[in-house]
Amino acid sequence: MESQRPGDLAQQLGAIVGEENVLANDIPEAYTHDEAIDLPPVQPLAVVFVRSSAQVVELIRWARATRIPIVARGTGTGLSGGARPAREGIVCSFERMNRILSIDTGDLTARVEAGTTLAQLEQALDGTPYFYPVYPGEMSATIGGNIATNAGGMRAVRYGVTRHNVLGLEFVTGTGTALRSGGSYVKTSSGYDLTQLITGSEGTLALVTEVLVRLSLRPRHRRLLLASFLNFQDVAQAVVAISDRGLEPSVMEYMEASGLIAMAQHVDINLGVSAQIMSEASAFLMVELEGMHAGTLDAMTADLIDTLVSTASTEQYLLDEHQRQELIRAREAAFWTVKHLGATTILDTVVPRSKLAPLFDGIAHYGRTSDTLVVGTGHVGDGNVHLSLFAADPQAGAATAKAIIDLALELGGAISGEHGIGVAKRQYLLDQIEPDRLALYRSIKAVFDPQDLLNPGKLL
Amino acid sequence: MESQRPGDLAQQLGAIVGEENVLANDIPEAYTHDEAIDLPPVQPLAVVFVRSSAQVVELIRWARATRIPIVARGTGTGLSGGARPAREGIVCSFERMNRILSIDTGDLTARVEAGTTLAQLEQALDGTPYFYPVYPGEMSATIGGNIATNAGGMRAVRYGVTRHNVLGLEFVTGTGTALRSGGSYVKTSSGYDLTQLITGSEGTLALVTEVLVRLSLRPRHRRLLLASFLNFQDVAQAVVAISDRGLEPSVMEYMEASGLIAMAQHVDINLGVSAQIMSEASAFLMVELEGMHAGTLDAMTADLIDTLVSTASTEQYLLDEHQRQELIRAREAAFWTVKHLGATTILDTVVPRSKLAPLFDGIAHYGRTSDTLVVGTGHVGDGNVHLSLFAADPQAGAATAKAIIDLALELGGAISGEHGIGVAKRQYLLDQIEPDRLALYRSIKAVFDPQDLLNPGKLL
Repeated sequence: MESQRPGDLAQQLGAIVGEENVLANDIPEAYTHDEAIDLPPVQPLAVVFVRSSAQVVELIRWARATRIPIVARGTGTGLSGGARPAREGIVCSFERMNRILSIDTGDLTARVEAGTTLAQLEQALDGTPYFYPVYPGEMSATIGGNIATNAGGMRAVRYGVTRHNVLGLEFVTGTGTALRSGGSYVKTSSGYDLTQLITGSEGTLALVTEVLVRLSLRPRHRRLLLASFLNFQDVAQAVVAISDRGLEPSVMEYMEASGLIAMAQHVDINLGVSAQIMSEASAFLMVELEGMHAGTLDAMTADLIDTLVSTASTEQYLLDEHQRQELIRAREAAFWTVKHLGATTILDTVVPRSKLAPLFDGIAHYGRTSDTLVVGTGHVGDGNVHLSLFAADPQAGAATAKAIIDLALELGGAISGEHGIGVAKRQYLLDQIEPDRLALYRSIKAVFDPQDLLNPGKLL
Repeated sequence: MESQRPGDLAQQLGAIVGEENVLANDIPEAYTHDEAIDLPPVQPLAVVFVRSSAQVVELIRWARATRIPIVARGTGTGLSGGARPAREGIVCSFERMNRILSIDTGDLTARVEAGTTLAQLEQALDGTPYFYPVYPGEMSATIGGNIATNAGGMRAVRYGVTRHNVLGLEFVTGTGTALRSGGSYVKTSSGYDLTQLITGSEGTLALVTEVLVRLSLRPRHRRLLLASFLNFQDVAQAVVAISDRGLEPSVMEYMEASGLIAMAQHVDINLGVSAQIMSEASAFLMVELEGMHAGTLDAMTADLIDTLVSTASTEQYLLDEHQRQELIRAREAAFWTVKHLGATTILDTVVPRSKLAPLFDGIAHYGRTSDTLVVGTGHVGDGNVHLSLFAADPQAGAATAKAIIDLALELGGAISGEHGIGVAKRQYLLDQIEPDRLALYRSIKAVFDPQDLLNPGKLL
């Protein structure tokens, strides 16, 4: 790489995107990291705000010539460092490329620029009978960022993760080739599925410029039940009982009692749970049902309560609409709660549903035997467990994190259920990946990005 | 390629799979084609029945050394020639590699060898509360073949296609590398999604040896409604009305009146549709609802009838359980019906749902103006239209097929919704694909299969 003076650089980049869309001096601190809590920031050479696919093509051509790497960034809400700048690299921000291009209620699709946030899309759909059901809990996240990590969230148990709700992409590969994939249809058997390959690839294969998502019918009514349990094994059993009942909950979250208390305090809600239950219970299960007809939903809710009573749940609380919204909001804000409390590591491992009980056992064991406090919540209907680790000694915390990931892998799980690998989990991936698989990943990467310009040092 | 005498070849292959698993002389005619109706057969050098992943690895190593291509085959039920042998190539049959390895009702998964048929899996699940919902209408098809084409079918409107129901694969690439992808979880963000890349790749990237599928809760009750319409535009509108009602039908099929009559005759059922309606109606819509509780389902059925009455539907028939099963069976057998009647081309284009009306218009136009009879049925809830073309002159039939595919693409659709490209649709793909996309496909192919040994001349 030839060394570049900031002045030259800003000029070259300004020629591509307009000088008002380049930050080369006094780059705000926010652009040196994402929300991963245990990673040092990295200063980029510049931040470029692209506004069109054509500009992205030009930017990548420039990067090919200068060999300066590019890291795509939405609003920087990622939790694994995927959007952390590369050293001596450029941040390509999609914040200003955020138009909603079309909403087609006939086809149940929305076409948006990659920098569109979930909040923007929700606002555009507000008042229509449709919504975009992927709900990672951070509405300021961009759809492009959701594509990068294959974002999931609370409603994935019913609606699937990003992968299941994206129908098509417009993207630019590391060779500067702009292409579209997919279309306004749910099914096709007409070539390799580039949409699926790029979804979850963390900006290492292509820069996504436009996304076609599938909309769902917005449920008219929702009910939220909170059930207390004396131990985690009982929660795991209740999850199976509910799923076998065919009620198709839209949310199925577990929370450690201490986590629920912290969350409730953080957003100041009263859930009506008695002090005795709060002191006895180890864990809570939060189950949301939804439907188009209140009557049908009431019958389903009664069925859910019956099902929970037949499990080892000690108490069940049907929340009112205000409590329901507040508890969902508290769960959404769980990351901010644990960050505020000083969590040192965040994990989001996923295991087969039947392996939740041994995973919980193992987590409790590591919590007891290491100098680390482990507090859990998670999308338990999907086997996806979110853990916050609090360790005074970073080494001890890292060792506990590694032990938990190793256990999840042993149980047939995966490192990350939705946050992605990024930088934060990369060493865990490299520690356990078979050489043949890594070689295949790297060959695929080389097809899309032969010069390793796109998000180098991430994921693989 | 060095020329091989059949004796040598049989011996070499026998050393890999055992001589009882090699056919090199008197190869049955069935192995020279699949069920595509307009393709000439191709004689393979040999048919090899593999029984393990290790044998597949050995077979591919042998192919690399001899440069003899390999075409994977399940039970040969494909409709696009994807399993047609390569000239001077070997057929790798998975018919004898068909064990159900595990059924895990805790995780809602089944792990099967690639040659397992849908019928076998259904039999293994019979009596359990679970089923595998992908239902392409041919229960003798193998799961491995379903992976190759990303098979869909009638129930995709509710359960998705194969892509949405496969959680993991074991496969061997064209370099002889055996790998596993995915696992017993619905969501992961831990690397490139090889499961999704291989699904729908028609045996061109890897030979799939084992499949982990997701099971669904088997509905206890089903209801089937048949509604008549005077024209196709009204059907397209009714599809939107039903979907907007939130009833989540498990089947939403349209049938031309002539198609329904032919199907009913083929399986000899009486649907109770009056002669007057049969003579007036242009098209029928078949809507199946399902549920765990008969009461809830009856309420949904009443809602569906109300919804249909509010559309331009002229009559609605609630079928009894016997009629329901028979009509589903007739729809399943539609391919055999049209084959029996002498159809010359089968199309399975997909368009955005809102473009069904102009597609129907165009199809009617081509039917009137060309010397081709076009009869349609299809998974209309997914915008996936199956057309049978009857042409005395093959040229005229091909021209009509091309015109319909061009129209579907113009409307934002794709060539194939579920049969795949194979040989039958390859020229259509090559005619319209952008050079950059084809180059990308070919580079991905080269990563997995640098010697072009796996299903050469198919798909791309």
